[in-house]
Amino acid sequence: MRVAIVGTGLIGGSLALALKKSAFASHVIGIDQNAEHLEKALSLKIIDDTATLQEACHAADIIILTIPVDAISKVLSHILEYIPETTTVVDMGSTKEKICNDIAFHPKRGCFVAAHPIAGTENTGPEAAIVDLFTGKKTIICEKEKSKPQALSQVEKLFRSLEMSIEYMTAKDHDLHIAYVSHLSHISSFTLGLTVLEKEKNEKLIFNMAGSGFASTVRLAKSSPEMWAPIFNQNSKNISAALGTYIENLQAFKEAIDTNDLQKTKGIMQQANAIRKVLDKG
Amino acid sequence: MRVAIVGTGLIGGSLALALKKSAFASHVIGIDQNAEHLEKALSLKIIDDTATLQEACHAADIIILTIPVDAISKVLSHILEYIPETTTVVDMGSTKEKICNDIAFHPKRGCFVAAHPIAGTENTGPEAAIVDLFTGKKTIICEKEKSKPQALSQVEKLFRSLEMSIEYMTAKDHDLHIAYVSHLSHISSFTLGLTVLEKEKNEKLIFNMAGSGFASTVRLAKSSPEMWAPIFNQNSKNISAALGTYIENLQAFKEAIDTNDLQKTKGIMQQANAIRKVLDKG
Repeated sequence: MRVAIVGTGLIGGSLALALKKSAFASHVIGIDQNAEHLEKALSLKIIDDTATLQEACHAADIIILTIPVDAISKVLSHILEYIPETTTVVDMGSTKEKICNDIAFHPKRGCFVAAHPIAGTENTGPEAAIVDLFTGKKTIICEKEKSKPQALSQVEKLFRSLEMSIEYMTAKDHDLHIAYVSHLSHISSFTLGLTVLEKEKNEKLIFNMAGSGFASTVRLAKSSPEMWAPIFNQNSKNISAALGTYIENLQAFKEAIDTNDLQKTKGIMQQANAIRKVLDKG
Repeated sequence: MRVAIVGTGLIGGSLALALKKSAFASHVIGIDQNAEHLEKALSLKIIDDTATLQEACHAADIIILTIPVDAISKVLSHILEYIPETTTVVDMGSTKEKICNDIAFHPKRGCFVAAHPIAGTENTGPEAAIVDLFTGKKTIICEKEKSKPQALSQVEKLFRSLEMSIEYMTAKDHDLHIAYVSHLSHISSFTLGLTVLEKEKNEKLIFNMAGSGFASTVRLAKSSPEMWAPIFNQNSKNISAALGTYIENLQAFKEAIDTNDLQKTKGIMQQANAIRKVLDKG
């Protein structure tokens, strides 16, 4: 299978490595506006070849979009115009509703599969690519009934070749739940990093006092602003609601601390402890 | 050296294992109000022996307090009364100011060393003990000038036997900075866990959509309420200020999202990205 990957960063690069390893891809064409990424991906043998987006639309059996969600929104309808009816397009964006709505009435809507593999790291660029980034993880496919059976099964085969399990849901449900389970985590982490950096001008002091707990909560603050700003923008309503509730809960925690209400702080923490069961067992 | 460890949970148990491995301790006496923990620690051979607190005060060369900070505040002055002048007492609590102030004028203040090893996990109990929990980590000693040279050097030797590096600061500085670099992380994580659990009643759905990023930011929400409520209480003023700034920064982030201000969200994230340099290089 000839695979074109639009965006040769962490996700695109990891996909290229994994799809060649699984033999799903016989040939990987890389497309990127960032010439440096493209060159790096070539020299690291992550991709076999480069092309323009229009060339790739005719040379590939499947086109995978691993670019920021605003860029997906911009190029998807053009790609659908260029491709033959037999080509499949799949995106890997962290938002689904706007991307799906934008091309809802496109004559070639059926060629597109809306997907979100739940995998990533806080690092960026082709040199951050990891061959087993997706192994054993979950992926979500939205609006599967709007994809042609052939396109859907090709994408399912792709994810299964990566040893991923697949969940199906509406784009609306995806965006609502992912706001809580992923997007909110990123904002909590970015803001935590900012708050500590603002207060602690002495970086050596942070380094000396920070344990693995701080490193864990602040890890996502290293993530790419170019990738995340468009996600927050496309899913702004759900994220705003999630963030509003988070802020209210923090205010309640602060009040319990300010009034020395140990029973209340303990009660909040005991409720939160239930996350262990959820994460460990599912 | 005969070591008594008051509190045979994660920290006490890990210390017992490590101090025996490093040969700092020839014999470890475990003291715990929790009979189950004590029995478990004995059966796992984490401790050699048990005793009452009073017995341990006379049987040990060094007494290590690895109990919640409110319990440290309660027992420390009594322990100082019981022990001979040649015995050293060291605590491992996450707050230092109240603990130090409480015994500031105790006639045996010099026997006490106030310490905070920056190490831990979200797990609890002697079965969670790890022999290398402290290896390569940092520890903070406060008010070292108030400890007798002999007591201080014994405790420094203890931490060095664990291959820990030592930083020195005032108890006031410790509590201020640790509020930002550790205590705030815990509240951010507990509250994130609570917010997601309140919204997502379907635990399977959280499990299916949660990636490593969510797991990382919410890991500390598994921590022990019994241990953390007293920490938040003893360091309430610093934590309240840190939490207030965190909430303000979250409100600013929310406003940028609500007004579709991509430049502002990008700017906040770019500032937060600097945490990478701090954590990686120090």
